[in-house]
Amino acid sequence: MNQIKIFSPATVANLSCGFDVLGCCLDNVGDEMIISENSLQEVRITSITGQDLPLETDKNVAGVAAKAFLADLGNSQGFDIEIDKKIKAGSGIGSSAASAAGAVFAINKLLGEPLSVSELIPFAMEGERLASGNAHADNVAPALLGGFSLVRSYEPLEVLSLPTPEELRVVVLHPLIEIKTKDSRAILRQSVSLKKAITQWGNLGALVSALYTSNYDLFGRSLQDEIVEPVRSILIPYFDELKKIAAENAALGFGISGSGPSVYAMCRGDENAEKVKSAIKEFYKSKAIDFELHLSGINKEGIKILS
Amino acid sequence: MNQIKIFSPATVANLSCGFDVLGCCLDNVGDEMIISENSLQEVRITSITGQDLPLETDKNVAGVAAKAFLADLGNSQGFDIEIDKKIKAGSGIGSSAASAAGAVFAINKLLGEPLSVSELIPFAMEGERLASGNAHADNVAPALLGGFSLVRSYEPLEVLSLPTPEELRVVVLHPLIEIKTKDSRAILRQSVSLKKAITQWGNLGALVSALYTSNYDLFGRSLQDEIVEPVRSILIPYFDELKKIAAENAALGFGISGSGPSVYAMCRGDENAEKVKSAIKEFYKSKAIDFELHLSGINKEGIKILS
Repeated sequence: MNQIKIFSPATVANLSCGFDVLGCCLDNVGDEMIISENSLQEVRITSITGQDLPLETDKNVAGVAAKAFLADLGNSQGFDIEIDKKIKAGSGIGSSAASAAGAVFAINKLLGEPLSVSELIPFAMEGERLASGNAHADNVAPALLGGFSLVRSYEPLEVLSLPTPEELRVVVLHPLIEIKTKDSRAILRQSVSLKKAITQWGNLGALVSALYTSNYDLFGRSLQDEIVEPVRSILIPYFDELKKIAAENAALGFGISGSGPSVYAMCRGDENAEKVKSAIKEFYKSKAIDFELHLSGINKEGIKILS
Repeated sequence: MNQIKIFSPATVANLSCGFDVLGCCLDNVGDEMIISENSLQEVRITSITGQDLPLETDKNVAGVAAKAFLADLGNSQGFDIEIDKKIKAGSGIGSSAASAAGAVFAINKLLGEPLSVSELIPFAMEGERLASGNAHADNVAPALLGGFSLVRSYEPLEVLSLPTPEELRVVVLHPLIEIKTKDSRAILRQSVSLKKAITQWGNLGALVSALYTSNYDLFGRSLQDEIVEPVRSILIPYFDELKKIAAENAALGFGISGSGPSVYAMCRGDENAEKVKSAIKEFYKSKAIDFELHLSGINKEGIKILS
């Protein structure tokens, strides 16, 4: 085996009360990547379609992640990486994570799996560091592991996989405006009130309980964010109206995906998800903003090998 | 039935990363209470043994909780409350909660259970409001419900019962010094860094996962408190040394119980708990501070009817 083709999924991170620690993996939104061994002892980004992104290895998240992984292994094998970007850069659904996680996943496979999939997370995080200045794990972990990933600790890194209630569906609206992750982090307050922090961790504890018990109503009640959403939502056109529409159409919860501008609605079952998606589409198409709209199940597998 | 005798248990609240939201119920530390109907249409505290506490109904946490409950029911039945306090007031293991929860639990029983046990929580919280100025639920909830209780939300109040891993044991050291809950709250900073808050909620999410999966090591790693412990531990003599001793003796985790001065060590199994208890005893008996030391399982039942 000297070539592999994979599907590398989009992810929703910063799941409301799980800011910086909780993300989940989507099923039918993702990049396709072909990674091949070369004989040059270097990592090259040979092709990017779908998005205008740098081909220089050291400026590309997939390149940086791949190099970090190979350096750690002490392996001088070279690889060519082709990326067909279906996830728009800057969308807030883990575009950089998909590329970075996909690269290390594929190379690990081609090298005969010297590391477990969860051991690949730190290298994929190097791609995130390049993209946003912050090596966060709540996109790359669910991209690699599938389902819901909880980052218990960054130092040392510890990521848990949590159970996925079967009927969960995610509607993602991506307004086609640009918010840079870096900028989106810059507007966060560096201190928060103890009272709000307590509310946040009460909700996150309950959210984890809801995942273990498939308690959809509890899941919905817990999907709140007292800290980041009030600040960041002002960057997202019609956020409050969208949240209201989601609630009126019985979505379980609604919030910002990643650092935006995408927003997500968690829904129970296909029928409800379709209804929420239609209502959001109906509302947003009257606005002067182009957008993409996705409906996805939770992808329990993570990155998939296509050939 | 016009009289009931109950065991009302001690509880460990503010469980490290679960500050203000997570508590658990102890098995062999608790008050005994006898509650009897009287024909006076008033709630009286007729006897308190074991501790010097006010007999005036409106100054006693059991009296205040009982009156709040009866007022809500619109019931004018009177009750006499006798309390044999085995939990020392100001210990940090839910002394006021035991009295308040015990009173409402017993009266509910004597009245033929007009409310479910979980519906009693708000009335028991009125006792906590009297005791500390803050109607917190993380002692009264586990006292009433048993096991681990998570307060997802205070407004509206929502409390979840979480699973109890079978082998958990708790060692509690109560240094016989006084720290008033009110004072202990006053030294808390009202704002916290976002970074530490994120660490805290990552740990709490993982702690909940550990309870569902009986993952003792994860439970131990998650029992951390970056926010409150560094501030409050300075009020507890030899806190750092005790924490070190607990770790050296393979306790799963160690922290402040409630608002102190009691501290707890979570342990796996009786043998480990006995070892940790002995080591703490050995260390503390050389100091000039009287103390009590308890070893308990987790009480899954909550308040128990004795007769």
